[in-house]
Amino acid sequence: MNIRFYNARILTMEEQGGQLREIFLGEIWVKDDKISYVGKGAEEQGAGMPERPARWDREIDCKGNLLMPGFKDAHTHSGMTLLRSLADDMPLHDWLNKQIFPVEAKMTGEDIYELSRLAVLEYLTSGITAVFDMYLTPETIADAFDNMGMRCVQVAASQSASQTQERYVRLNGKSPLQSFMLGVHAEYTSSRELLEAIADLAHQYKAPVFTHLSETRQEVEECKQRHGMTPIAFLDSLGMFDYGGGGYHCVFVTPEEIAVMKEKGLYAVTNPGSNTKLASGIAPIGDFLKAGVRVAIGTDGPASNNCLDMFREMFLVTGLAKLREMDAAAVDAREVLKMATVNGSLAMGLPDTDVLAPGKAADMILIDLNQPNMRPLNNIVKNLVYSGSKQNVIMTMINGAILYEKGIFHTGTAPEEIYEKAEQIRRRLIG
Amino acid sequence: MNIRFYNARILTMEEQGGQLREIFLGEIWVKDDKISYVGKGAEEQGAGMPERPARWDREIDCKGNLLMPGFKDAHTHSGMTLLRSLADDMPLHDWLNKQIFPVEAKMTGEDIYELSRLAVLEYLTSGITAVFDMYLTPETIADAFDNMGMRCVQVAASQSASQTQERYVRLNGKSPLQSFMLGVHAEYTSSRELLEAIADLAHQYKAPVFTHLSETRQEVEECKQRHGMTPIAFLDSLGMFDYGGGGYHCVFVTPEEIAVMKEKGLYAVTNPGSNTKLASGIAPIGDFLKAGVRVAIGTDGPASNNCLDMFREMFLVTGLAKLREMDAAAVDAREVLKMATVNGSLAMGLPDTDVLAPGKAADMILIDLNQPNMRPLNNIVKNLVYSGSKQNVIMTMINGAILYEKGIFHTGTAPEEIYEKAEQIRRRLIG
Repeated sequence: MNIRFYNARILTMEEQGGQLREIFLGEIWVKDDKISYVGKGAEEQGAGMPERPARWDREIDCKGNLLMPGFKDAHTHSGMTLLRSLADDMPLHDWLNKQIFPVEAKMTGEDIYELSRLAVLEYLTSGITAVFDMYLTPETIADAFDNMGMRCVQVAASQSASQTQERYVRLNGKSPLQSFMLGVHAEYTSSRELLEAIADLAHQYKAPVFTHLSETRQEVEECKQRHGMTPIAFLDSLGMFDYGGGGYHCVFVTPEEIAVMKEKGLYAVTNPGSNTKLASGIAPIGDFLKAGVRVAIGTDGPASNNCLDMFREMFLVTGLAKLREMDAAAVDAREVLKMATVNGSLAMGLPDTDVLAPGKAADMILIDLNQPNMRPLNNIVKNLVYSGSKQNVIMTMINGAILYEKGIFHTGTAPEEIYEKAEQIRRRLIG
Repeated sequence: MNIRFYNARILTMEEQGGQLREIFLGEIWVKDDKISYVGKGAEEQGAGMPERPARWDREIDCKGNLLMPGFKDAHTHSGMTLLRSLADDMPLHDWLNKQIFPVEAKMTGEDIYELSRLAVLEYLTSGITAVFDMYLTPETIADAFDNMGMRCVQVAASQSASQTQERYVRLNGKSPLQSFMLGVHAEYTSSRELLEAIADLAHQYKAPVFTHLSETRQEVEECKQRHGMTPIAFLDSLGMFDYGGGGYHCVFVTPEEIAVMKEKGLYAVTNPGSNTKLASGIAPIGDFLKAGVRVAIGTDGPASNNCLDMFREMFLVTGLAKLREMDAAAVDAREVLKMATVNGSLAMGLPDTDVLAPGKAADMILIDLNQPNMRPLNNIVKNLVYSGSKQNVIMTMINGAILYEKGIFHTGTAPEEIYEKAEQIRRRLIG
């Protein structure tokens, strides 16, 4: 397939001398799953233009709208769509023990397959082109994402190191769109033996490890009681982060832990929607940036947010940092946009999806600037972070395939069928 | 015009015994600018059904989607669309003095007319059917809203009490969609003489007064230095609130002031997006609710938010309250939905727009439940607040007229023309 996008504003998210490359008018060519050209149109480029394909399968007039890399949702539990709005406005402990865990105990791999497909539809509406997923049945989750054409990196959360290793070997390379990383659910849900075994696997495969990390104050205090150390310091002492990785949430971290994160190249994956709704707290994003720790952004699962919307998360990352620091200049929108795109790609081990450039994967989105919330065009980057919304997502392309365009899904299954499956599961498991 | 909406889920927002009336399947009839019927369809209702009109001008199959009252944006400065994303990520003082004020000084009434029209388009995309606006040129603002068919209540912000009185008399009753309330910009921008004169007008007309109130800590401290009292206490001591009214923001208020607000029936209009982005603080919503002070919700202007999106605001109202109180059970989503609809109507003096019932104004919206972020349907009210988005707004009807439907505006002017006018103003005033 040869697809030409023309008459587009283009935000490549490349950096030049520490600055974002400026938005320019031009075109992007896609050949199969890759970007083959990013630059000026024929009028300006003239003889410098690469050779055109014999024919275009499709030429899309972008009407001055914005092409940019897709968003990367760097922490989610897709199968939790079932639990959306099931148990809100209640204390965290009750929420988990009385509502979430009992329903999860009844979910089958087939249920999670269907519920993950529902999540994929939602990701597409928000311009999310890859997710970092952690949930109960990695095999059916990989099938669900593959079936929809969605890129997904899964992280292990098994209580068994041998199962983790077996999945790591088998699910990596299963398909071009699916990969699998080492991980544990969290320090507070893992035995020391499991943690040590996963650290051994990290050494064996020279591989990064991701886990829930320092989400609540209680979790940190309990880790200190159990192990005499804060969570990041403790896991690092086991060698778990010797090949990188990172943590989801990272709300309560010490300056010493931030230094470890910098030294080991760990990513702080922030989840502000979830941390807000569950009253966990505000992560120290400004401190991470000052220390040179790279931040990515995740929605967390739809039971704790309750939506899978990167626009909400981007506003919250900068907004909550401003409140935390009582400084309206804290955490610039440009940094936030980088977190939501480039940093997510790098954290997830998807360096081919970070920016728009020839040879990169064709994972990109078209943003409608001809909507009132984007006008006037004082500053498109700030508009994206401060006033953008899912309503501005015209198109979501993953691996060269347009999966969502002008409100229509092209994922092989009618959305109504996926909704109905979710309702059937709800009726069966919740009533 | 006779319009019939059928096959709808209906959320009237009426209360029965302190509980929201449950969502039910049925239909709504609109005759001209009013709702004429809300109830079951003919199949269930049978002989109890009122007489149908001789013919329907339009019958709309809602396909199980949700009809509910439109959102009321209870504090905004529509004309500030020009300043959207012009000056973000900077300290408040620099933001106001170096960026906002110099541009505002150059804006004409005609500019504000065009910029307010741009804002109306954005309100419609977010299901907002009425706004409480305060800006520089009330005459052209009323014309802009009237021209678009949008309901607007303006609040005085003049430095002249006689001008305020003159506008109060002239702009009220100008059209069925426009009204005007007494007010001042803020304590900190008003002389004592002006404040006393506005309090006199409140007594003369037995009318409520609205103003920016206790938005920042600095403002409260300076008021104490100037007048020996906190702002609400001071303005109340002048008799300004003897006929009700309320304040925008109300972030820093004392328990004594909350008692005054309850006693005088004042509304706290909260603006969480703005308070977040400008690092002002988190308003004590839980305290207002406990004291019985009614809360409404506003977006504030698009320079300080930067969008006019009630879904963002609703999530922030409850989310920030949860963070402030470190309690995931703080400020239930049901309360938030009431703030965004019923309470806004009452604060703005629009009691005919509060709920869906026969005889009420036909100001309502259709919410798409057949979108992934709304599935499964565990709890539609929680879905609206926690996962709803502008993308779910299928239709916005004001005063019986459908002004926005499936992404198309029906306001009499092509949106591209309005965008281009805004860009022309930007080029002229900002460059």
